[in-house]
Amino acid sequence: MATTLLKLSCPDRVGLLARISNFVAAHGGNLEEVHQFTDQSEGWFFARLAVETQTLNVDLEAIKATFRPLAAELEADWSIRSAETKPRVVLMVSKLGHCLADLLWRWRSGELSFDIPCVISNHETYRDLVEREGLPFFHMPVTPETKADAFDRMDAIWREMRADLVVLARYMQVVPMDLCAKWPNRIINIHHSFLPSFVGANPYQRAHQRGVKLIGATCHYATESLDEGPIIEQEVTRVEHFHSEADLLRLGRDCERLALARGLRYHLADRVLVRGNRTIVFRD
Amino acid sequence: MATTLLKLSCPDRVGLLARISNFVAAHGGNLEEVHQFTDQSEGWFFARLAVETQTLNVDLEAIKATFRPLAAELEADWSIRSAETKPRVVLMVSKLGHCLADLLWRWRSGELSFDIPCVISNHETYRDLVEREGLPFFHMPVTPETKADAFDRMDAIWREMRADLVVLARYMQVVPMDLCAKWPNRIINIHHSFLPSFVGANPYQRAHQRGVKLIGATCHYATESLDEGPIIEQEVTRVEHFHSEADLLRLGRDCERLALARGLRYHLADRVLVRGNRTIVFRD
Amino acid sequence: MATTLLKLSCPDRVGLLARISNFVAAHGGNLEEVHQFTDQSEGWFFARLAVETQTLNVDLEAIKATFRPLAAELEADWSIRSAETKPRVVLMVSKLGHCLADLLWRWRSGELSFDIPCVISNHETYRDLVEREGLPFFHMPVTPETKADAFDRMDAIWREMRADLVVLARYMQVVPMDLCAKWPNRIINIHHSFLPSFVGANPYQRAHQRGVKLIGATCHYATESLDEGPIIEQEVTRVEHFHSEADLLRLGRDCERLALARGLRYHLADRVLVRGNRTIVFRD
Amino acid sequence: MATTLLKLSCPDRVGLLARISNFVAAHGGNLEEVHQFTDQSEGWFFARLAVETQTLNVDLEAIKATFRPLAAELEADWSIRSAETKPRVVLMVSKLGHCLADLLWRWRSGELSFDIPCVISNHETYRDLVEREGLPFFHMPVTPETKADAFDRMDAIWREMRADLVVLARYMQVVPMDLCAKWPNRIINIHHSFLPSFVGANPYQRAHQRGVKLIGATCHYATESLDEGPIIEQEVTRVEHFHSEADLLRLGRDCERLALARGLRYHLADRVLVRGNRTIVFRD
Repeated sequence: MATTLLKLSCPDRVGLLARISNFVAAHGGNLEEVHQFTDQSEGWFFARLAVETQTLNVDLEAIKATFRPLAAELEADWSIRSAETKPRVVLMVSKLGHCLADLLWRWRSGELSFDIPCVISNHETYRDLVEREGLPFFHMPVTPETKADAFDRMDAIWREMRADLVVLARYMQVVPMDLCAKWPNRIINIHHSFLPSFVGANPYQRAHQRGVKLIGATCHYATESLDEGPIIEQEVTRVEHFHSEADLLRLGRDCERLALARGLRYHLADRVLVRGNRTIVFRD
Repeated sequence: MATTLLKLSCPDRVGLLARISNFVAAHGGNLEEVHQFTDQSEGWFFARLAVETQTLNVDLEAIKATFRPLAAELEADWSIRSAETKPRVVLMVSKLGHCLADLLWRWRSGELSFDIPCVISNHETYRDLVEREGLPFFHMPVTPETKADAFDRMDAIWREMRADLVVLARYMQVVPMDLCAKWPNRIINIHHSFLPSFVGANPYQRAHQRGVKLIGATCHYATESLDEGPIIEQEVTRVEHFHSEADLLRLGRDCERLALARGLRYHLADRVLVRGNRTIVFRD
Repeated sequence: MATTLLKLSCPDRVGLLARISNFVAAHGGNLEEVHQFTDQSEGWFFARLAVETQTLNVDLEAIKATFRPLAAELEADWSIRSAETKPRVVLMVSKLGHCLADLLWRWRSGELSFDIPCVISNHETYRDLVEREGLPFFHMPVTPETKADAFDRMDAIWREMRADLVVLARYMQVVPMDLCAKWPNRIINIHHSFLPSFVGANPYQRAHQRGVKLIGATCHYATESLDEGPIIEQEVTRVEHFHSEADLLRLGRDCERLALARGLRYHLADRVLVRGNRTIVFRD
Repeated sequence: MATTLLKLSCPDRVGLLARISNFVAAHGGNLEEVHQFTDQSEGWFFARLAVETQTLNVDLEAIKATFRPLAAELEADWSIRSAETKPRVVLMVSKLGHCLADLLWRWRSGELSFDIPCVISNHETYRDLVEREGLPFFHMPVTPETKADAFDRMDAIWREMRADLVVLARYMQVVPMDLCAKWPNRIINIHHSFLPSFVGANPYQRAHQRGVKLIGATCHYATESLDEGPIIEQEVTRVEHFHSEADLLRLGRDCERLALARGLRYHLADRVLVRGNRTIVFRD
């Protein structure tokens, strides 16, 4: 059963939900799922409506055209798309492949619905893993000297591949600020700590030294400020005194896998709305 | 800021959300919070709308009167009430007072908003605890011989006290089936296991014998079937081989406190809707 | 750094820990890690000692020979082995491959240390997944008519493969009672519910119908009683009213992966001791 | 059944566990519970032994005298005490009483075993709550001008009360560095964030602004560095976009209650050993 997704955020006003649901009803749309949130302190309205496509009496382009003037009046950020159109996601990885392997499984088994135009790495480590899935693997080394050039080429490839999203699946190079700025809310990173704890390098080592009793991972949009982008999802697990730093790395991997897979899932289904540095996540 | 709460459930149909939000908008109502859920498999619609009272251009009785014909047309179960009207909750307890003490604190500190017309117990254990809060304490012993009579009197007291809700806060007598039937979705119980595991007596003992690695507690509506009513909230905690049965009782107490306090909170704010044996819980 | 593992359980008595640690010290053994637990109610003692192999002044066979009379005196169940000897684990799967894929990754990346002599399935679904890892894949169909024969052959293969352990990684056939009895504490199953809730078939469907607020998975030893063997590990996750049965299956998969991977990890490192229907798990 | 507790930490060496368990066995001591941990990277040994008092063939003073030379040889930090001797704990609170009320219940119900010589507050808010428990309540206002004096008097009272431990149960004044230094590992604080996230003031406000998806609380020893002392216990809970800052405060209270109650429990039973800025916690 096909679904049409309407996502929008705009300044709050009286009667907003009525207007939007009237709009859908006026086109015969049967609502499968509705999420709505009003941030009272900011006076901002967020919504996601999943409409049964076959009940709509107009096609996708027509409904977008009809919604445009209403959206303009509401000063809304919005999108309408078919849930069946798979987003194109470029995966980036370095030498730790657990998140990559996890995403490949969820992709291949159909748990997550997206296309993978290519996997890019600054190492050759996972070429086989990727190619045996029938996916293109690009090795793009990054050195301090070549970094600027390498990321320019990366940007070019992402565009060439018509990527809707880039996932840094334990990609251990810091993406340059200007590149993040060019792909706003379109680069997802998994950070191996429970942010804002342990921003930056070696979070597990620092967690071990600090003697914390819980460690975690954070799935967030990459922005110009390192590890400070909008958080989509976090996961934690308990640790004890007998866990060495190596144990923390091991236990943390499961947090990373889960936080990234869930964060990606929400993004792919248009369940994440961003306002400033906060996310509204209409979970499923 | 005063709030008016509209809660309803009814058969699903196209345009339902539009009609309800139009209704609110037509009376000038500004929506503070909206929850909506459609159970696709059952074809049933559930909603809770929190409306800023001062924006409404009619009073509570008038809006109820206006909504009545619409509700009838929609074949809806519904209620409209002022969020500031505190529900009247009778607390029942036996010899384990941790849930009672927890609820009394949350009540006195204002974390939970309700009135306590009285506390009833089949033991004298907590008379002091209750009376020093300035609350009436009724000792109503229950023996196998007097049980039927005792619960008839209980029912009478509940009605006399104009109770909106009865909370079995570790009340260790089984409430008779017919009494449960007379107070549908108005008796909340905390069961000391993770239902449906360990229905019935001595769940911690049985959990220990079974060697489970997690124990829990379940907050549910009491129905005619013991421990089988609609579940509102559950909580679990990890246990290990070194935890004795006494440890399980201790650890379980925190699960019980949390599950009951949260379940009660949701109920008090009209956030729980029941359909068959399942609950829709619009959490806050 | 090589490690020698001593695991034992026996009736408790005064001075037991002293005798065992004296035994290790007498052979020069430096203790890396010691776990000890006394079940006071049963009067039973459990221990696991990890000894730095290079500090021992005798070899593995000699230390076993020396320990034998002491163990006999203590009436102990015991084992001494090199931690570097990888257990041989046969994996069994049916049509749901998420646990299999997860274990293959943890095996290949070295997170879990074991050998896989073969993977057996009653379906062809995962032949490619397995063979591309360079592992033998055996398709052994099971029908009601052939079931007895099939499991006789299974048993033969397990023995032929010198399996130390069999893992039912979402293998959807019930292993016959007599076969479980022949492989005591050597068959690990992942059950897709939070046992003892939802023993038997279709646990997610029943969890959905019951309206529970948490679902889970249980890693346990298979015994003659279905889903009633000693529990090694459990994992749970929250669900809400908006999660369909399909959502429960999806969310449950992550519980299954985690509970099985952890349970297997503990078993492989001799961290699980069984007494009756309970496990002592010295986690790492 | 009375218990004698031996707690020690010392440099690791071969045969250490044998020597200590021999010591206990030599005095006829039956071990109820043994915990041992060797920090391999630091070469440090930690142990806690619970011995059945009635099986010891000498009294407490005698066993301490006998252990002294061994401890000296091992260069150990150590203590031997009767588990039945209740530690004396001064509770400190400001205007938020949820942790205080929680501890008072656990104390009165016997869940936690300690004596309360007095409760001290910089406000009068909880005088009644404390005095109706029959406990002395001291109001000690703290202003910027009087702070130094006030804490000198606090120190005097703590000593006068023969306090073994001071618990800052949401006491909102920063204890001066020198006072922390005088009471090493004898002042327990509950910080209302998941440290090291949000060190300092207003952690919930900052958590809300950062848009984290989990909040928490940390129970730790107060040291000369604000919020940087050894962590004993932490607790977290999930939050979502619809949770306001006020919701975070509410949800956080349950984290604070649990983390503090558990941390205190471990400390009271000599289950916490400190080395540098890390704790070894032998949980029960």
